Amino acid sequence: MTDFAATKAMFHLPEGMIYLDGNSLGPLPKATPAAMEKVLRDEWGEMLITGWNNAGWMAQSTSVGDRVARLIGAEPGHVIMGDTLSVKVYQALASAVELNPDRRVILSDSGNFPSDLYMAEGLIQSLDKGYELRVVAPEDVAANLTDEIAVMMITEVDYRTGRLHDMKALTAKAHEHGVITVWDLAHTAGATDVQLADCKADFAVGCTYKYFNGGPGAPAFIYVNPKHANTARPAMSGWLGHDAPFAFEQSYRPHTGIERMRVGTPPVLALTALSSALDVWDMTNMADVRRKSQELTSLFITEVEARCPELTLATSRDPDARGSQVSFAFEDGYPAMQALIAHGVIGDFRAPNIMRFGFTPLYIDEADVVRAAEILEDIMTNRLWDRDEYKVKSAVT
Amino acid sequence: MTDFAATKAMFHLPEGMIYLDGNSLGPLPKATPAAMEKVLRDEWGEMLITGWNNAGWMAQSTSVGDRVARLIGAEPGHVIMGDTLSVKVYQALASAVELNPDRRVILSDSGNFPSDLYMAEGLIQSLDKGYELRVVAPEDVAANLTDEIAVMMITEVDYRTGRLHDMKALTAKAHEHGVITVWDLAHTAGATDVQLADCKADFAVGCTYKYFNGGPGAPAFIYVNPKHANTARPAMSGWLGHDAPFAFEQSYRPHTGIERMRVGTPPVLALTALSSALDVWDMTNMADVRRKSQELTSLFITEVEARCPELTLATSRDPDARGSQVSFAFEDGYPAMQALIAHGVIGDFRAPNIMRFGFTPLYIDEADVVRAAEILEDIMTNRLWDRDEYKVKSAVT
Repeated sequence: MTDFAATKAMFHLPEGMIYLDGNSLGPLPKATPAAMEKVLRDEWGEMLITGWNNAGWMAQSTSVGDRVARLIGAEPGHVIMGDTLSVKVYQALASAVELNPDRRVILSDSGNFPSDLYMAEGLIQSLDKGYELRVVAPEDVAANLTDEIAVMMITEVDYRTGRLHDMKALTAKAHEHGVITVWDLAHTAGATDVQLADCKADFAVGCTYKYFNGGPGAPAFIYVNPKHANTARPAMSGWLGHDAPFAFEQSYRPHTGIERMRVGTPPVLALTALSSALDVWDMTNMADVRRKSQELTSLFITEVEARCPELTLATSRDPDARGSQVSFAFEDGYPAMQALIAHGVIGDFRAPNIMRFGFTPLYIDEADVVRAAEILEDIMTNRLWDRDEYKVKSAVT
Repeated sequence: MTDFAATKAMFHLPEGMIYLDGNSLGPLPKATPAAMEKVLRDEWGEMLITGWNNAGWMAQSTSVGDRVARLIGAEPGHVIMGDTLSVKVYQALASAVELNPDRRVILSDSGNFPSDLYMAEGLIQSLDKGYELRVVAPEDVAANLTDEIAVMMITEVDYRTGRLHDMKALTAKAHEHGVITVWDLAHTAGATDVQLADCKADFAVGCTYKYFNGGPGAPAFIYVNPKHANTARPAMSGWLGHDAPFAFEQSYRPHTGIERMRVGTPPVLALTALSSALDVWDMTNMADVRRKSQELTSLFITEVEARCPELTLATSRDPDARGSQVSFAFEDGYPAMQALIAHGVIGDFRAPNIMRFGFTPLYIDEADVVRAAEILEDIMTNRLWDRDEYKVKSAVT
């Protein structure tokens, strides 16, 4: 059984703050500044260009990818790091549609993160072949999996409500109809016990600045099922995905396996920060994290519902049907969240009316959950949110 | 006149090393570790999610872009940071071809960096509309600019030979024929006095880990000419290029201007390192850097040709026809470069036979140039390269 007090001690958490926004940006691991100092001074500073070989920079994309693979139930050697999640969505989708060349519908749901839908729109317009992006309600995805669908592109956990799709069932039904699946793990990687291989997912992508605590703008990852690894064509066919990048050949020849999904020069500093953050995961495993996360989210629901009748639960009461977050709907959710932040409890707001709270056992415990609910009660009962200063919207909300 | 001794003092250069590979990876600015410590501990560590507003992270892509804009002769507000150079090549090219919808030829040259050609191949295969990638010899580009060409995609300086294209003349000729231009500034940004606005370039892209010293895998940039800024469609239409990213609308609406070329979450740590590196440029200007760079490359050519008859100059003798590098062809260039590195002079090798040396006045002076030539002479005259240990190829060469 994981010692979560020990994992909590691995993070820097500001004095007096209860941080329930790790589903947006995880906190600073205490080990990260030293890791960054090392890559800057000992590697970049002293090795300069030779760091690509001598410090292992060129191998980082795969070595860090292998560490992520273990945490999302992927086969080793089938996850690679790089780029942003939106770029990886584009790459996965562009590859996926070509595996179903005679179909013209990309199926997604209205609970998907907008950037995924935007990237699909952009790709569809570029391809100019009559593709349709069909966006249905989350509960209607299964019923819409037909022989007409080329690709199902779904984010496993809804960023607003925390609703968790059944990856195994949806993927199985998709495959019955010859549909290729692209799973976005933005809110599940590091949060739930994702089992990509067991679910037979075709493609998966995700980010590492949320539950993996890689830092603001940390690199994304992409997974390609072994059965497609040597046939999927990376639309963004960059030199580092070439079979022999340093032969500088004039034409592209894809690398075997997941490495073909590499594009440009890897972000060494960011991958170093992420790698240091992943060390925390050596102290635990996803099954323990998931079990504890379900306890924490259940406790928060119980505490808040008992204290704040003004708030309406927007997340499933069934722990197996939600991710590692709890959302409440409240008409004045924006100022209420600002007031809560001013009182030391950090969650976030998602339009139009969602107050969102993320939980991870790595650094949140029962005492934090109860204290956060107490502070929220104070703000709601005494209408502390009803002040002009909390109603001014900032650039990033 | 710039005080180049003062700029040199801003960099950490390992004791006894003459670093002539800044055209591949610039050295560590002395200010960068402290800047990174600040973003880690004071910003990420203390502000967490609120750093997007309170530490200005969300504005970094444009604020750093403006600093780069000044150094490449771009109009302020028309350069934005993000992604890798290969991804930005893809994005620029995908936008550019749509501005010439009735043409089907992308013109490039055999001196272009392979990744640019690979990305074009990947895009062409995705579009599946009969596009042709026409790759001609560098000296034949102008003659191949005809009414048939949709886009000319050219890297201004050849990564092997250092040959410098005439951006103004080629762009003018391209425009006479209705051709859209995409310029890759990988080896010119920070190296030559690029004047994008004056040359009327349509698109430009570049990286920042070479002459801008942003660190391994530092972010790329993209420039879009103001005349296209509100019409170019970013094929990779990510949420941060949306007109209202935090409204989380279901459909994409591009932001006005260069911001539409943003894709995903910006790499805050990498942009912070880059921003600290750009401070050095506040002490100088591109005209001074270019003039001094031409002096240094001329001096190196003179010194090496006088000392090493075994080597054949592969770079133009005309300072206005080359970038900030000098290349020599030598059949045993690979072991010769390894021997040179072992003797403290860092250059690099590019297949099949090019020994490549980059120069920047920011941290290389005349004494370094002469000393490097002396060491090279020793290696060539005494065949110090002819040892088995120098002939083993490493992963990154």
